[in-house]
Amino acid sequence: MNFNMLETPILILDADRLAVNAARMLQHCDEKKVFLRPHLKTAKSLEVAKIATNGRMDGITVSTLAEADYFADGGFDDILYAVAITPNKFARVAALGQRTGKSLMLILDSPEMAQAVASSPLNNPVLIEIDCGESRGGLPTDDPALPEIARLLGPQFRGVMTHAGHSYSTDQIDEVQKIAQSEITAAVDAATRLRKLGFGVGIVSVGSTPTVYYGDDFRGISEVRAGIYLFNDLSQYGRNIARYEDLALSVLTTIIGHNRKAGILTVDAGAMALSKDIGANAHLPEARFGWLCDVDTMAHLGLAVDLVHQEHGSVKVSDPALFDRLPIGSLVRVIPNHACLTAAAGYGGFHLTDGRFWPRQDGW
Amino acid sequence: MNFNMLETPILILDADRLAVNAARMLQHCDEKKVFLRPHLKTAKSLEVAKIATNGRMDGITVSTLAEADYFADGGFDDILYAVAITPNKFARVAALGQRTGKSLMLILDSPEMAQAVASSPLNNPVLIEIDCGESRGGLPTDDPALPEIARLLGPQFRGVMTHAGHSYSTDQIDEVQKIAQSEITAAVDAATRLRKLGFGVGIVSVGSTPTVYYGDDFRGISEVRAGIYLFNDLSQYGRNIARYEDLALSVLTTIIGHNRKAGILTVDAGAMALSKDIGANAHLPEARFGWLCDVDTMAHLGLAVDLVHQEHGSVKVSDPALFDRLPIGSLVRVIPNHACLTAAAGYGGFHLTDGRFWPRQDGW
Repeated sequence: MNFNMLETPILILDADRLAVNAARMLQHCDEKKVFLRPHLKTAKSLEVAKIATNGRMDGITVSTLAEADYFADGGFDDILYAVAITPNKFARVAALGQRTGKSLMLILDSPEMAQAVASSPLNNPVLIEIDCGESRGGLPTDDPALPEIARLLGPQFRGVMTHAGHSYSTDQIDEVQKIAQSEITAAVDAATRLRKLGFGVGIVSVGSTPTVYYGDDFRGISEVRAGIYLFNDLSQYGRNIARYEDLALSVLTTIIGHNRKAGILTVDAGAMALSKDIGANAHLPEARFGWLCDVDTMAHLGLAVDLVHQEHGSVKVSDPALFDRLPIGSLVRVIPNHACLTAAAGYGGFHLTDGRFWPRQDGW
Repeated sequence: MNFNMLETPILILDADRLAVNAARMLQHCDEKKVFLRPHLKTAKSLEVAKIATNGRMDGITVSTLAEADYFADGGFDDILYAVAITPNKFARVAALGQRTGKSLMLILDSPEMAQAVASSPLNNPVLIEIDCGESRGGLPTDDPALPEIARLLGPQFRGVMTHAGHSYSTDQIDEVQKIAQSEITAAVDAATRLRKLGFGVGIVSVGSTPTVYYGDDFRGISEVRAGIYLFNDLSQYGRNIARYEDLALSVLTTIIGHNRKAGILTVDAGAMALSKDIGANAHLPEARFGWLCDVDTMAHLGLAVDLVHQEHGSVKVSDPALFDRLPIGSLVRVIPNHACLTAAAGYGGFHLTDGRFWPRQDGW
């Protein structure tokens, strides 16, 4: 693809790397004998979803009802909306079902919401969210409310799900392995407890990219969820979950200024284009707001976006020769610190390295 | 306005506070005898622009060509695109002029780009960007390239502009006053230097919300630019640039979970809805990712979004009574840490407190 004269900033998706990343995860889940329900919160794209499922038009995870609508309207069935439901979203959930006939599975973690769902006209399947250690959403495995919720849900109760978000907090693979096992244990224990009380638990769902890759024994787990593995970013790279050649997403940006006196090179990718997420820096301090790469080869230029303003990125340059190598008006690509936030920055879609454009569904 | 059952997260704009904020700045600029060219990079809304200009359909600033197109198509003339131009944007700039007949003023800071503009079919007016101390874009006042650029631009050269972005780095008003004066001095010095060399300098443009409010002597300045004053946020509040009652923007969010064991309350406004900007925390550490307020009165609840995940915000709760006060399914409003980033999170527009909806133009 000839990037010259493309207006910037735009989002570039390497179709070959995406295909490799998707195939690797599908093969991994086949080997582990678990169903992969890809999380599309990063991609928010029908075309990416089809690659992630290898053409299967069902069994996906989303993080917003805008995504749920988009994928259901696009033909996907069996969609898990993995954010706890509340009554102000019931009308939209009902409308999706009536309009598309597709199945949207909900999650919740309180008797109040179980009661609200059960007494509403909604007939959606529901999972109970379990907290496996992140202390975000979900109930502890031994919480007395667990069977109460299952009882309140009646036939809408389908199983349990948990997410070890804390697997993103370490770059030690043996730590990830431990967290993966505790995620599995929490879900299986909750399922076992409910089954002993007579509830039918069909779905036992876990996952995050690190824990799916590094979980060992998935017995008792019916399905896994992961998403960022499709694109990867410096956050995954810095924690040894992805290799450099697995980084499929970048932002095409233009050098818009040379401040030779201050040793600053300015690009037109700032806080809006890259986001202000610097989570990767906990394990890769030099990640900053993203790495500058050669526009064609993706070779790292040894430079980062060190500071972001709304539409400006400031790059510290110690070698003045780089000003000549990167003249004003020339292009570079920036590997994002955190792809989920960068991809949702308002681009509207992905420019593929083979010239195609794939739209995405941002917002709510 | 009855917020109950509104789907969340959505962006709420207090129309009364916006009107007060806009009128105050217009009056301030009248008193200082400078032309106000509001920066619409935060609002990105035609309706807000009309309020910011008091109905005048010209003289505004934008940060993207998407905004430029949107405001020109919406009837605004004399638009300043305040990010240095490069050749890959010439085609879109030309198309805007041909389509709308409106004037788009460009900025640049290098002989290379002055040459590129001058030798292109573009006939847009151009300002030279001056660096007044932030070390981002712009040339020092005494840079030898300054007259060279003016010469290369020929009749397209119209003046100089600078932006003291570093005025956002202090909460000391006397410091802001000094930065404001140095911003004015830089612009006036550059203009004076060019005039002595025979160039006609019609426009001498400075500004940021803090420096426009705290600049003293604006002699030699033809116009000022400011934007965040329209909405304000915890960043402005924490640096004493805005009062609590000037905070016009908030995110309506739903309590989606109680984790009583961990002392965590979860809302459906996370990194996507609020952004990961924590710039305010430098001067207001308790700002975190935003303050929780009563949905009707906007009274601060003494709680903040302490941690953000993609679609979840985690709120630390030390008083268990708050779980009862804020049941699952109830609504709160979050005052953003930094309004520019939050407003651009993908909401598509503003829900006004009087029930209206105003769209906005995000992206590029």
